[in-house]
Amino acid sequence: MTGFINDASRVRLDGLNGFARLHGELVILDDGARHVRRRSVKLDRVALVSGGGSGHEPMHVGFVGAGMLDAACPGEVFTAPTPDQIASAIAAVDAGRGVLLIVKNYSGDLMNFGMAVDMVSTPTATVSVEDDVSVPRVFGGVGRRGVAGTLVVEKLLGAAAEAGADLQALAALGERVNARLRSMGVALRPCVVPQTNLPNFALSPSEMELGVGIHGEAGRHRVPRMSADAIASELVTAVLSELAPEAGDDALVLLNGFGATPPAELYIMANSIGGALERAGVRPWRWLAGSFATSLDMAGCSLTIALLDRQLKGFWDAPVHTAAWRW
Amino acid sequence: MTGFINDASRVRLDGLNGFARLHGELVILDDGARHVRRRSVKLDRVALVSGGGSGHEPMHVGFVGAGMLDAACPGEVFTAPTPDQIASAIAAVDAGRGVLLIVKNYSGDLMNFGMAVDMVSTPTATVSVEDDVSVPRVFGGVGRRGVAGTLVVEKLLGAAAEAGADLQALAALGERVNARLRSMGVALRPCVVPQTNLPNFALSPSEMELGVGIHGEAGRHRVPRMSADAIASELVTAVLSELAPEAGDDALVLLNGFGATPPAELYIMANSIGGALERAGVRPWRWLAGSFATSLDMAGCSLTIALLDRQLKGFWDAPVHTAAWRW
Repeated sequence: MTGFINDASRVRLDGLNGFARLHGELVILDDGARHVRRRSVKLDRVALVSGGGSGHEPMHVGFVGAGMLDAACPGEVFTAPTPDQIASAIAAVDAGRGVLLIVKNYSGDLMNFGMAVDMVSTPTATVSVEDDVSVPRVFGGVGRRGVAGTLVVEKLLGAAAEAGADLQALAALGERVNARLRSMGVALRPCVVPQTNLPNFALSPSEMELGVGIHGEAGRHRVPRMSADAIASELVTAVLSELAPEAGDDALVLLNGFGATPPAELYIMANSIGGALERAGVRPWRWLAGSFATSLDMAGCSLTIALLDRQLKGFWDAPVHTAAWRW
Repeated sequence: MTGFINDASRVRLDGLNGFARLHGELVILDDGARHVRRRSVKLDRVALVSGGGSGHEPMHVGFVGAGMLDAACPGEVFTAPTPDQIASAIAAVDAGRGVLLIVKNYSGDLMNFGMAVDMVSTPTATVSVEDDVSVPRVFGGVGRRGVAGTLVVEKLLGAAAEAGADLQALAALGERVNARLRSMGVALRPCVVPQTNLPNFALSPSEMELGVGIHGEAGRHRVPRMSADAIASELVTAVLSELAPEAGDDALVLLNGFGATPPAELYIMANSIGGALERAGVRPWRWLAGSFATSLDMAGCSLTIALLDRQLKGFWDAPVHTAAWRW
């Protein structure tokens, strides 16, 4: 983050105030700026709360609204929200049917969401998203990272909640989506973290990091720069290798920019990914490209593919009205 | 453009093919890739065609669809579309009621749109957008540059065309919007042009260019970097100084990222601009923030304000269904 800033200590708050100015018809910023919630809350159904570090905008605040999240809790930059923030969101949106928590699989986030659960009497269930195929599954460890696929979980479970699913059904659905959802990213340039004003990892202009995490975590390989077509092949191969389509499944494809990658380059990548998918025999059923789950001003992108059965396709196409997605 | 690319000579075509893959339900890419047009063309009304150099995506292709453009003609990077491209678009969308051409005020674009008009027998009218306040009005010269405000013209005239306005009424409305539409930009980092693989102007990391054009044209001042709040004050003051609100007017505000500026920074700028507008006594009636009219991977943003009377407010809120705007 080397551009528009007032003070490193105000990044979170200035950004939230700006978001609330832009989208005040959809959301309310809590008085203490602990969370962002839908204007129309306390609906007679299970409420959905997500959250995580700031710096990934529009994730999660941009996905608060009808058909998706009821509230989002943005922590400081790349820092988990505090248990108090999460508890405030749960209290604000709970309508007596329980609250589902959607958490990216990072130990800090899981710990603080867990503490928040202990602070409230509301029935809750937690879905931990771990879609990043770039790191191997670790038995006994914290497991895989949750990245842009988290937004797919939020969309599908948001539609299911609107349709009246109860807390246990939503948690089970979350696990089902998790099993059919894979992502991998590539970084071309690191982001600059406001607290230090330094890049969060070192990468020469002639290199790229395949399998990078959304905080600049190391990936699978650091390799010389490749063409868009070659990068697309790497991402498509890695993601498809962990997905096993069943009869009736269709592929939802999400091409996500990391913050400093312009639309012109995302369109080129969309073409390259479309070609690589074609060669793999996969025809996208729906797809989106945009900067949805960013890493401040990191340049690069991630590819997410979700296999959707008939029920999940219905949930995907259900109406959504948030700052970032609307259909 | 230092990221996802196959070959400098394929930037335009790869990007258009990617766009068509992503949005094939909305648009058709002409067989010769000369233009992008709505799937549902030849409607019984005046058709709207825009165009300009590539490298500004999603402008203009992302604004083809119901309620906005019927076709867009993307030239090579930062290069006017050819007369042949423009004539092909006019022929494809003309339904016998004439075609309105919306052109950003650059001599190359105006010349080629003018030649296309000479090549067709379709009745046409041309609206030339010149919203950039950063350069003074020049009498007898080419005048001011058209920048992100072009999208406001396209949205308002698109709604008017859907409502049945004829060619002359649309041209007159375009002039009316032009007179109430002002923009100014700031660059924090130049873009890298694919043809040369070099930045298109020199700017040290401690400087910024106030009043930059969307091709990196020089602006008003090159000054040391300022805080987001101070930049917002500069932009708001410059833009408002050229607008004279009348009774009943409301302010439409468009905060536009130049390509490499991430959502987190746009939210911070939205807060700073909101504060500066408040101090100036202006309450945004509607506002949007996003990367709509980019300059490849330039970092920075522009502010556009349009004063809308009752009729124009109706046109703004009319439904639109394009790749980039939908409501």
